[in-house]
Amino acid sequence: MVLPVPHHVALAGRLASEIADRLAEAAPQLETRVVDSTLTPDELGWADTFVGFRPPRNLADSRIVWVHSMAAGVDPFVPVLGALEPPPLLTRTVGRLPHKLGLYVAAHLLAESQHVVEYVRRQERREWSPVPGVPCEPATAVVLGTGTIGSGIAGVLRPLGYRMVGVNHSGHPSAAFDEVRALAEAHDRLGACDALVCALPLTEETRGIVDRSLLADLHGATFVNVGRGGSVREDDLREALDDGRVRRAILDVVEHEPLPETSWMWAHERVTITPHVGAITDADDVLAEFLPACASLAAGELPKSAVDLGRGY
Amino acid sequence: MVLPVPHHVALAGRLASEIADRLAEAAPQLETRVVDSTLTPDELGWADTFVGFRPPRNLADSRIVWVHSMAAGVDPFVPVLGALEPPPLLTRTVGRLPHKLGLYVAAHLLAESQHVVEYVRRQERREWSPVPGVPCEPATAVVLGTGTIGSGIAGVLRPLGYRMVGVNHSGHPSAAFDEVRALAEAHDRLGACDALVCALPLTEETRGIVDRSLLADLHGATFVNVGRGGSVREDDLREALDDGRVRRAILDVVEHEPLPETSWMWAHERVTITPHVGAITDADDVLAEFLPACASLAAGELPKSAVDLGRGY
Repeated sequence: MVLPVPHHVALAGRLASEIADRLAEAAPQLETRVVDSTLTPDELGWADTFVGFRPPRNLADSRIVWVHSMAAGVDPFVPVLGALEPPPLLTRTVGRLPHKLGLYVAAHLLAESQHVVEYVRRQERREWSPVPGVPCEPATAVVLGTGTIGSGIAGVLRPLGYRMVGVNHSGHPSAAFDEVRALAEAHDRLGACDALVCALPLTEETRGIVDRSLLADLHGATFVNVGRGGSVREDDLREALDDGRVRRAILDVVEHEPLPETSWMWAHERVTITPHVGAITDADDVLAEFLPACASLAAGELPKSAVDLGRGY
Repeated sequence: MVLPVPHHVALAGRLASEIADRLAEAAPQLETRVVDSTLTPDELGWADTFVGFRPPRNLADSRIVWVHSMAAGVDPFVPVLGALEPPPLLTRTVGRLPHKLGLYVAAHLLAESQHVVEYVRRQERREWSPVPGVPCEPATAVVLGTGTIGSGIAGVLRPLGYRMVGVNHSGHPSAAFDEVRALAEAHDRLGACDALVCALPLTEETRGIVDRSLLADLHGATFVNVGRGGSVREDDLREALDDGRVRRAILDVVEHEPLPETSWMWAHERVTITPHVGAITDADDVLAEFLPACASLAAGELPKSAVDLGRGY
């Protein structure tokens, strides 16, 4: 693969102007333009690099050789880039997103065990009464996905007292976890966990991976999805909620976003819905990956944030 | 001081029976009885040791020489024991309570920054819409009190990304904190913090310590009280809430418990009330202090959990 060297960078989306301003300082050798979701004829001929949350609609008509995803999840990019010959280089943003997702997961798991929402209700009724029992202390959390995102989540949860079990396709170890298992070897760990966190990218391999068969192993765990909605069979999740194998589902991502108003999930008393806000990318996150990637390319090296289009992450 | 050696242990309160059962196994040399808040004439003559959440009403008529507090906060015991001549030995429970309080504080701080309650409201309206902006990441937290409780809280908050500043009367260092200041030297740290946590015991020195003058240093911090309500001047707190120096007050303890139904705090939109549940003592917590204290006394040593009645903690 011939590595591209960026000169003309088209930036799209919410962070485009801010990043363009900061690149003027941090990488003055680059020319930048803020663009729309469809590139103009002029931009199509000008841009060699694109940075945004989604690929431009007419990427195939451009001479773009490097695409940087502002998001950590690159599933909107992979099929589009994979269809081009040769495909552009794809890199992605990581930055502080793993830690941010860890804070999201910690906030929702702790809010549940500490009855934060229940106490808001009691306060509204001016009711000074403890929820019976002693709050569960963190015990075991299983994270599906042991890459940068899963490891970031483990890094936040572990100091809270969780024993962290990671699950990946082969069971290869990851330093952020107390233990890593291949999915096929994880039945007992799923059966004993109090939290199951999905931090998987959406690929052909992970689509629908959280299904009846996986959920059957659980015994009252809280399920958190901060990966992609497409990894979960939502009907199977509903069954597992209704028979108690899942105590609560905390879903920052769902198969169809925004969640349709008619979805059963909105009103299920043991489902928490948040609108895909677990980790909101900021300009620091993007620049923390984009600038080192520029430096790698200038040195003729593949950036660490490069995505394997065949694997999908 | 002649150290007592326990033989006859009177146990009162919610955990009395469970602890009596477990002492039968763990310390068979002790005789135990479960007692009420007032000792019977027979118990007055029998007991040399008392374990409970509050001193027995007729402690002065007993021959009790050792009192173990099931709670970490010993303010109900100090004046009662201090009035006796000679005063009984007072020890207290620590156990997992510092970590539990850390989880409480983390749950409520993260719930606030992640808008957990606001998203519950939006879900009730079937509304898929992000709260604008990027959630604040943990920055600086100041903890009033650097003893076992304050250190336990720091141990939970620090890995979330908080820079931890401890405040105590002299500024003596504590390993759980990035930095410790004496209160008089803490103005700039209070001005720059995003969370202020009160973890102080209630003593003559700390009564009303969180007053207008201390709160004047804040610039929009969240205030959490897991110490004692008496440490806070509630009218001064209201002023600081209303002028924005305190962004939110999360109060697990208040001056008068249960909080009177007429209190302004119930309905203030930036006050969170929980009914003194930040750390609920369980039998493990009590035994984790009581059994080592028995061993120390048998060896003629002062238990590590002994309280200095003069100092009040």
